[in-house]
Amino acid sequence: MSGSDEPTAGAQQQAHERYEQQQKAIEQRADEIEHIILVMSGKGGVGKSTVAVNLAWALALGGESVGLLDADLHGPNTALMTGTQNTRLGMRDNLMQPAIAAHGLKVVSMAMLLDDRDTPTIWRGPLRANVLRQFIAEVDWGQLDYLIVDLPPGTGDEPLTIAQSFPGADGVIIVTTPQQVSQDDCRKAINFARQLELPVIGVIENMSGFVCPHCGKETAIFSQGGGEIMASEMGVPYLGALPLAPEIVSLCDSGRPLADQQAPQAVRDTFANVVGNINNQIVRQKS
Amino acid sequence: MSGSDEPTAGAQQQAHERYEQQQKAIEQRADEIEHIILVMSGKGGVGKSTVAVNLAWALALGGESVGLLDADLHGPNTALMTGTQNTRLGMRDNLMQPAIAAHGLKVVSMAMLLDDRDTPTIWRGPLRANVLRQFIAEVDWGQLDYLIVDLPPGTGDEPLTIAQSFPGADGVIIVTTPQQVSQDDCRKAINFARQLELPVIGVIENMSGFVCPHCGKETAIFSQGGGEIMASEMGVPYLGALPLAPEIVSLCDSGRPLADQQAPQAVRDTFANVVGNINNQIVRQKS
Repeated sequence: MSGSDEPTAGAQQQAHERYEQQQKAIEQRADEIEHIILVMSGKGGVGKSTVAVNLAWALALGGESVGLLDADLHGPNTALMTGTQNTRLGMRDNLMQPAIAAHGLKVVSMAMLLDDRDTPTIWRGPLRANVLRQFIAEVDWGQLDYLIVDLPPGTGDEPLTIAQSFPGADGVIIVTTPQQVSQDDCRKAINFARQLELPVIGVIENMSGFVCPHCGKETAIFSQGGGEIMASEMGVPYLGALPLAPEIVSLCDSGRPLADQQAPQAVRDTFANVVGNINNQIVRQKS
Repeated sequence: MSGSDEPTAGAQQQAHERYEQQQKAIEQRADEIEHIILVMSGKGGVGKSTVAVNLAWALALGGESVGLLDADLHGPNTALMTGTQNTRLGMRDNLMQPAIAAHGLKVVSMAMLLDDRDTPTIWRGPLRANVLRQFIAEVDWGQLDYLIVDLPPGTGDEPLTIAQSFPGADGVIIVTTPQQVSQDDCRKAINFARQLELPVIGVIENMSGFVCPHCGKETAIFSQGGGEIMASEMGVPYLGALPLAPEIVSLCDSGRPLADQQAPQAVRDTFANVVGNINNQIVRQKS
């Protein structure tokens, strides 16, 4: 192997200094944020982003100052869900300026850095970790009551990077569907959080039963109750269930909150109940 | 920085030789496999594993010799879906022996290497790439008519590793739900395949409409038709739609094929139609 491929000692030293500088900036940002909540799932497509976006919006509607960091670099859906998909991140004083969604919610997503929404981000893990660290260190989040982080599914590089960057996070919310395959993956996610010493705020069961709009009868398409059983077996709090509803899908696809006045009252009530349970858990952990 | 943390020139040379040896073994395996089909999605939870598992089973039921590689290291669901979740991979002549599922299907999944199904695999990208390469090079796949690879969602390390390891793959099947967020991510997956010069076999729309078992009326919970429109806009073949059905969820959770005699006739017919379209596309590409 030729030595010319290797970085020089000087370049290594510079990279090391940049990393140290970035770590200091991350710690400074974390000091300005009261609560950091990570939203995870073992499996994709269970409604993790739906929960993250709407938790952020519910807190913002309650008068809190809230940021939403989309850490899913490959499938950055929170931009569409918050109606900020056409915003590009601006720069001021060398810091990226978050997009401002309805109700003052600050949003940062990879979707806001791509010129073409169809372009994939084909990046290896170490590069992704660096982008995520930039999304914390080099964003003008300002003083926040809450930062909600929408993690990609699974237990890979991104959750690891975020957990290591925010050792003082309040904890993790785990989203699952009632299906066996989703429960199995969520057990892994809970153990992942434990290994990283992140408190588990609790489990939300999403897509729990579908009420036919034609006859009003319910069908448990993805089964039902599995989230509560799994939470109890794993010894973590259960935060409640959200139904499978076409109205939720269409609100999300059109970038509007579940708390929207046009949303069905049942959906708004159910989600408000889940948010109340999350707040209770956070207060309990802090006391 | 102390030089003692750096690998020695001898260790680097050994690692390089191991890599070269592995690459040779991968190419040898690929020579013994007639068709390699990758199943991808932009977004998780759209039924990618359901399609991969049941495509493999449909081919095996048709008399072909079929292998199924679960490349989703964080959420290895194909083991549960093929009823092989309690199998541990054995070794013979220094090669891992695949689990044998119903109808002679050979299955290899990370789930078969973990002692505890609840243990997460908290691995950075380069380590995951290496495990995937081992799952190709060091598995006794034997002569196969088809190897179906269930990729994790997104456009990250695993799809990149697999694409680079199998430059001669027949192509990629993209699974989407009709939702806008899933369509958006699938456009990225299609462009990803194009950048890597992998042919796109086509798009399958999953969770397309739900028929209420009580009143027989249909509701498009996740919207409907989006997969076909997206395929047409992106200029790739459309392979058909699979319905949202509790029977599909329960067959998958209990490790049984959709082609099972106990499955509803409509589900079996729909899936057989999709498999027929896939075969037509592969024949068309080869000719």
